[in-house]
Amino acid sequence: MPEPVQTLVLHAHLLTMAGDGVGYMADGAVAVRNGVIAAVGPTDDLASRFVADEVIDATNRALLPGLVDVHMHTPWAVVRGVAQDVANWMQKGLAPYSRHMGDEHALAGTRLNVLEGIRAGTTTFGDYDYPQDAWAQVFADYGVRACLTPTINAMPDGGMAGWKLGDLYPLDEAVYRRKRDAALALVDNWQGAADGRITTMLGPQGPDMLTTEQLLEVKRLAQARGLRIHMHTAQGDREIEQMEKRFGLRTPAYLAEIGYLDEQLLAVHLTEATDEEAELIAHSGASMALCSGSIGIIDGIVPPAKVFRDAGGAVGLGSDQAAGNNCNNIFNEMKLTALFNKIKYRDPTVMPAGEVLRMATIEGARAIGLDDRIGSLEAGKQADLILADLTALNLTPVLQDPIRTLVPNLVYAGTGHEVTDVMVAGRFLLRNGVILTADEQAVQAAAQAQGEALSRLVADDPVHKEMALLEAMERGML
Amino acid sequence: MPEPVQTLVLHAHLLTMAGDGVGYMADGAVAVRNGVIAAVGPTDDLASRFVADEVIDATNRALLPGLVDVHMHTPWAVVRGVAQDVANWMQKGLAPYSRHMGDEHALAGTRLNVLEGIRAGTTTFGDYDYPQDAWAQVFADYGVRACLTPTINAMPDGGMAGWKLGDLYPLDEAVYRRKRDAALALVDNWQGAADGRITTMLGPQGPDMLTTEQLLEVKRLAQARGLRIHMHTAQGDREIEQMEKRFGLRTPAYLAEIGYLDEQLLAVHLTEATDEEAELIAHSGASMALCSGSIGIIDGIVPPAKVFRDAGGAVGLGSDQAAGNNCNNIFNEMKLTALFNKIKYRDPTVMPAGEVLRMATIEGARAIGLDDRIGSLEAGKQADLILADLTALNLTPVLQDPIRTLVPNLVYAGTGHEVTDVMVAGRFLLRNGVILTADEQAVQAAAQAQGEALSRLVADDPVHKEMALLEAMERGML
Repeated sequence: MPEPVQTLVLHAHLLTMAGDGVGYMADGAVAVRNGVIAAVGPTDDLASRFVADEVIDATNRALLPGLVDVHMHTPWAVVRGVAQDVANWMQKGLAPYSRHMGDEHALAGTRLNVLEGIRAGTTTFGDYDYPQDAWAQVFADYGVRACLTPTINAMPDGGMAGWKLGDLYPLDEAVYRRKRDAALALVDNWQGAADGRITTMLGPQGPDMLTTEQLLEVKRLAQARGLRIHMHTAQGDREIEQMEKRFGLRTPAYLAEIGYLDEQLLAVHLTEATDEEAELIAHSGASMALCSGSIGIIDGIVPPAKVFRDAGGAVGLGSDQAAGNNCNNIFNEMKLTALFNKIKYRDPTVMPAGEVLRMATIEGARAIGLDDRIGSLEAGKQADLILADLTALNLTPVLQDPIRTLVPNLVYAGTGHEVTDVMVAGRFLLRNGVILTADEQAVQAAAQAQGEALSRLVADDPVHKEMALLEAMERGML
Repeated sequence: MPEPVQTLVLHAHLLTMAGDGVGYMADGAVAVRNGVIAAVGPTDDLASRFVADEVIDATNRALLPGLVDVHMHTPWAVVRGVAQDVANWMQKGLAPYSRHMGDEHALAGTRLNVLEGIRAGTTTFGDYDYPQDAWAQVFADYGVRACLTPTINAMPDGGMAGWKLGDLYPLDEAVYRRKRDAALALVDNWQGAADGRITTMLGPQGPDMLTTEQLLEVKRLAQARGLRIHMHTAQGDREIEQMEKRFGLRTPAYLAEIGYLDEQLLAVHLTEATDEEAELIAHSGASMALCSGSIGIIDGIVPPAKVFRDAGGAVGLGSDQAAGNNCNNIFNEMKLTALFNKIKYRDPTVMPAGEVLRMATIEGARAIGLDDRIGSLEAGKQADLILADLTALNLTPVLQDPIRTLVPNLVYAGTGHEVTDVMVAGRFLLRNGVILTADEQAVQAAAQAQGEALSRLVADDPVHKEMALLEAMERGML
């Protein structure tokens, strides 16, 4: 007697990502019941064991776990592309926009970015922002999974606009307390919300942006709640300079000294970390968020993810922000991660396709502490999965023997546009190429309007004259 | 009294690529008559000057010249993805397939690749293959522009399969003559065919694969016909080793000595060229084909394109072949070129978006000697143009002031899927996302079938046991 389930996906090229590899299965199937994966196996087997409300024929499609984006700043999608190809990106590119970013601009960016992510197969959004309930509500409403990090720092209001390169940041205890309390309020409101789809971390923005006492307090607060710490770490020469001036130590040594390096930490970027520092952090049990596209475009640097991973650390992929990286697409990050590392080591065998696909799924889930729930297709895990059309010209042909081309073609030829269906916790968010949980056109139009509004505020502020890209505008290169 | 034209495209975000920059014009228009651009200018102006059979409202779309792919091997799309993440790519990845590639496999790959290119906005295909009329016929039939290079070498039949790393290649005069004559026959049949859409070059495959006398004869034959030489140059350590063993010189010095460095040469890859060698070649007036994705994945190397360009040489972008690079998409090549060079020089200001967009259009046209006809939107040039949907989520928003985001977003966020319309010589090949000049489904299905057929031949040949990727298959990583 077949068991009833909600959804049965049959005849797929399955990549379960279970175990140590990619878990390929030809003619594979997944059964979904109550938002959870009830079974994974050969189509013949599952088709006889289950009856479903909805049966999906996934012939000529890949079926894999939803992609995990471990580090994003979604509001910045509202001014996608205003700051790249420049030195001193934060000061000479982003600062004038940062100074004027308001709640409505930010929310329009978040909405845009979440839909952009869904279209490219992202199901878990590791977003990092100033806390407001409306921000978290977007993820709840659109049906995605989110691991939200409210930002905590002691940086005076008004951002970096008045600050001079080389000066120590002024740290303000009152600002810290306000942001700490707002972060805790968001955590209390949202941890476990939306049937568990929303989880949280605490986000001391960077070790240079809080005092040691503040950093340690955030760690205690997180521990008491069973939360991870999500922190930009060795993210740029600016940070390292601040740390050396203030503490006489580079970031990793400082974090080791104050007891910050352990499995509670998700260390973001490690742009300026040496191989030895990356190993130190990995050996502590901490995880790494690798934002290849963003750090490549902003700094021209390939972070030490290979060393981190070789030392046993979990590495997840992050798309960071669209004001510099310009897109939030984990297919993009997989490809860039593989290629950048081949170039860094001048070795084509470094970071093969299957390994970066693991970073985008199970390893990313491990990096944010959700690998017991997501990241692979296994019975008992949440039903977060995506289907990709393998008859897209750029993924044709699908070959099996002697070499199976599915994984390298997804990683090296896929763009995200091949994703036809996205399910989170058993619910379809994208179905046959149509977004079901939001009004895509309205979100697009609002992002356009809010991006223009924020740009006008910047254009009216004389500080914009510091922007490095004005020269490219004048030369007719933009 | 308005003049009649065939097509009038109005209200576009125009990137003409004329002059030294990107030639941006808000609310721009293009008029097309008899396959040629009749006028480019503000919508108000052109709408009053012309009446058209077809008027296209390009509101919220970018209008730019069709993209130029200066170096491809389209047949390899038939086994996309069988050889990457390996060392000794040609020997340990490609050789077993090369040995069995037949005409029908190759043509299925070419057809697939041309449609893949059209979908990603490529209008000019710089393809390189063994000559057969059916190959050239694909480009003629599908309506694209092609600059075809029939391969000439003196390498014995059967490819590299029996050859041992480190041995000098055996060069065979009879093979050379046969391939030379076949190449000339193709040139005689096709140069200027399809209303001038098809042009040709001569392709000595590499300086290591012909004798000096043969190379010089090819150059004379090309000169007599007014054709360029399209040659792999310093393409790998294997080539350099052959040159040093046979001639006691590295490739650039050898080419200088035999008089091969001049404006007739399109030098492909320069993977192993030093900065000084790249300058030497650029100063000679030769052009460079830069295949960033392919060389990145196969060799982990970023070729010296910045030096070549800084020395005044024209650099065009090429997608090479899909057995290693996995995709043939100039959006992909633009992005990788910008990012790889930022990483190579650890400098985010290197190769900004506008410069790589020029490489993909006017500089690419210059590299293959067609810049008098294509590469920019200017009156009198061929009407090769593309439209891209700027309401795609990943290209939203479009901002103008103080920073215009169009070019960086096309380069860093675009994937090629945003291209809605493609016109070559005044004729639409893609219209509202539908390919008009070929049966896309039939081409896709044939490529799948031929890819499977070629894979079966390889699986049945014991030589396939040498393939490096078999180990990844066994470990469950593919």
